[in-house]
Amino acid sequence: MENKALKMQLQCPMPKLDFEVITLGHGSGGLLTNKLLDSGVFDLLSNPVLDERHDGAIFNLEGKTAFSTDSFLVSPIFFPGGNIGELAVNGTVNDLAMCGASPKYLSLSFIIEEGFRVDEFWEILVSIKNACEEAGVQVVTGDTKVVEKGKGDKIFINTSGIGSIHPKANISTRNIKNGDKIIISGTIANHGMAIMSLRENLEFESELESDTTCLNHTTLKLIEEFGEDIHILTDPTRGGVATVLKEIAVATNMGIDIFQKDLPIEEQVASACELLGLDPLYVANEGIFISFVAEEIADAFLASLQTDPKGTQAKIIGSVTEAHPKQVVLESIIGGKRIVNMLPGEQLPRIC
Amino acid sequence: MENKALKMQLQCPMPKLDFEVITLGHGSGGLLTNKLLDSGVFDLLSNPVLDERHDGAIFNLEGKTAFSTDSFLVSPIFFPGGNIGELAVNGTVNDLAMCGASPKYLSLSFIIEEGFRVDEFWEILVSIKNACEEAGVQVVTGDTKVVEKGKGDKIFINTSGIGSIHPKANISTRNIKNGDKIIISGTIANHGMAIMSLRENLEFESELESDTTCLNHTTLKLIEEFGEDIHILTDPTRGGVATVLKEIAVATNMGIDIFQKDLPIEEQVASACELLGLDPLYVANEGIFISFVAEEIADAFLASLQTDPKGTQAKIIGSVTEAHPKQVVLESIIGGKRIVNMLPGEQLPRIC
Repeated sequence: MENKALKMQLQCPMPKLDFEVITLGHGSGGLLTNKLLDSGVFDLLSNPVLDERHDGAIFNLEGKTAFSTDSFLVSPIFFPGGNIGELAVNGTVNDLAMCGASPKYLSLSFIIEEGFRVDEFWEILVSIKNACEEAGVQVVTGDTKVVEKGKGDKIFINTSGIGSIHPKANISTRNIKNGDKIIISGTIANHGMAIMSLRENLEFESELESDTTCLNHTTLKLIEEFGEDIHILTDPTRGGVATVLKEIAVATNMGIDIFQKDLPIEEQVASACELLGLDPLYVANEGIFISFVAEEIADAFLASLQTDPKGTQAKIIGSVTEAHPKQVVLESIIGGKRIVNMLPGEQLPRIC
Repeated sequence: MENKALKMQLQCPMPKLDFEVITLGHGSGGLLTNKLLDSGVFDLLSNPVLDERHDGAIFNLEGKTAFSTDSFLVSPIFFPGGNIGELAVNGTVNDLAMCGASPKYLSLSFIIEEGFRVDEFWEILVSIKNACEEAGVQVVTGDTKVVEKGKGDKIFINTSGIGSIHPKANISTRNIKNGDKIIISGTIANHGMAIMSLRENLEFESELESDTTCLNHTTLKLIEEFGEDIHILTDPTRGGVATVLKEIAVATNMGIDIFQKDLPIEEQVASACELLGLDPLYVANEGIFISFVAEEIADAFLASLQTDPKGTQAKIIGSVTEAHPKQVVLESIIGGKRIVNMLPGEQLPRIC
């Protein structure tokens, strides 16, 4: 973590400023807002569309388009494996990827609490820049607002994103079929448990890290290869794997069977869940996705996904059935079966 | 105001719920989030794209596209003439309109403070629905997050929007020319002074009201009529008329002359400004726009704008000059001249 932060600072040194914290004036829309943005924010995120600096960005788009939004309030804002900035980029990039889209343009809106440190703001901005580069997206429009101390919490970030749907993609709950295989791209519960371990001061041999990453390159490669045989893509963020599967079962009126033995989970993450009494099925993820694919291509899909650096731990975890509409049934390691519902209350507030 | 609220309730009665306030669980992404959204939010804002309920919205777009974002933190959230919901819709709709676009799709992201009353949330949602209908836009994707009590302030709303640029529009600071006329569509400082009067408990014969409204129908009609002769459209929100003119002068390296006697302002608004020692040039507006147009069409443009219900108070307030690059010069009523700069600090925090 420290090395990563240091590397960033060397690559993108913070501009010299005559203020150390953000004040209400920086959100006034006046001179101080301009000063803050001109101090390096525009330069850091520079691209031809953003550089126009109009109230809105203007670009050309053709064809089927995806549009998504998410506000990020994660606490703490810096955590092992990332920070709120890259989380905000990856989160919206991944929502677009789950639509079968190639993410292209992001908006970026900050709600900053008065007194927030400028060096922390800069570190977040550099992470945003790096995450955008990795995902291949551009921040093209933005907004900066400041609230009084005690009316926010350091920084909240909204990103909205626009992407172009891949011509071979046809992702819709309507396409789900009896027998579809359900494939997960990686280990579960990493993001949520990284945050929780930090909050609860749990120590492990090695630090638990968030899995926040962009998934668009991986999903687009799969869409290119398997096209319409991919029926659903979804990322199990808030509410975890359980909630997202239950939502799909309800929306499609189909049943889902999953097998606990096939759910990939890191040993330390499993231990952390046990210690805190959390079911990993409900814990948030930020760097994995679940695919529902036609039975015939499931093995080839899995093999292809496993060759991707972000899919090495991929597994088939279950399948779609007509047997118990709207129900998700988990077969435990010892063979017992239980019904899986949505996250009932709030397990981990401000996880993303 | 009360009648307006009552009318809304009759048209869109609040669903019966088994909770009166929003809790952290409503932002969990799990069962309670689904329950909240299914209680009436999805029905209220229903349209074919939103009804798909995917992580992202999918639609077709062709050609030049505008994209904008804004987070709204106005305090208080209900004020004479509107509330944070319609402000959030109109704000982004107007940003798109200022690009010469026809606004089409909005995203809607809530950051709600734990304990926020559901009936207030519902009133805001109904305003959002009504504002969308008036502007002709659809909410197609959204997000709901909840923060702990004391980490937010009732409700913050981010809207991002997508619009199609009118084929005849060519709005860019690059098009500004010596001699361009500067036309304002209505009276200044209404929004800011409505909020400030409320905060300061000022009483006037009739209540000061925010001017929040959508401007897209008005701007599109003008673009249809005057096309490329409209060089710049901009709405003087945070920072007011002064800040936006100074920004344009700096960006274009041109000078701007404006005349105080031509600046339309309601008497009560002017009195409120005087009472509070505020310069109306720096006070936020939410329902007016400023156009820079070719000198030859200025009178015809003004005449056309004045026939629009949202432009009856329109005036030519000044012109572009090469005489003093990057400077905005105001000629006062008694003939003195002063240089107008951007809003220097924070005048009215949380005005939008």
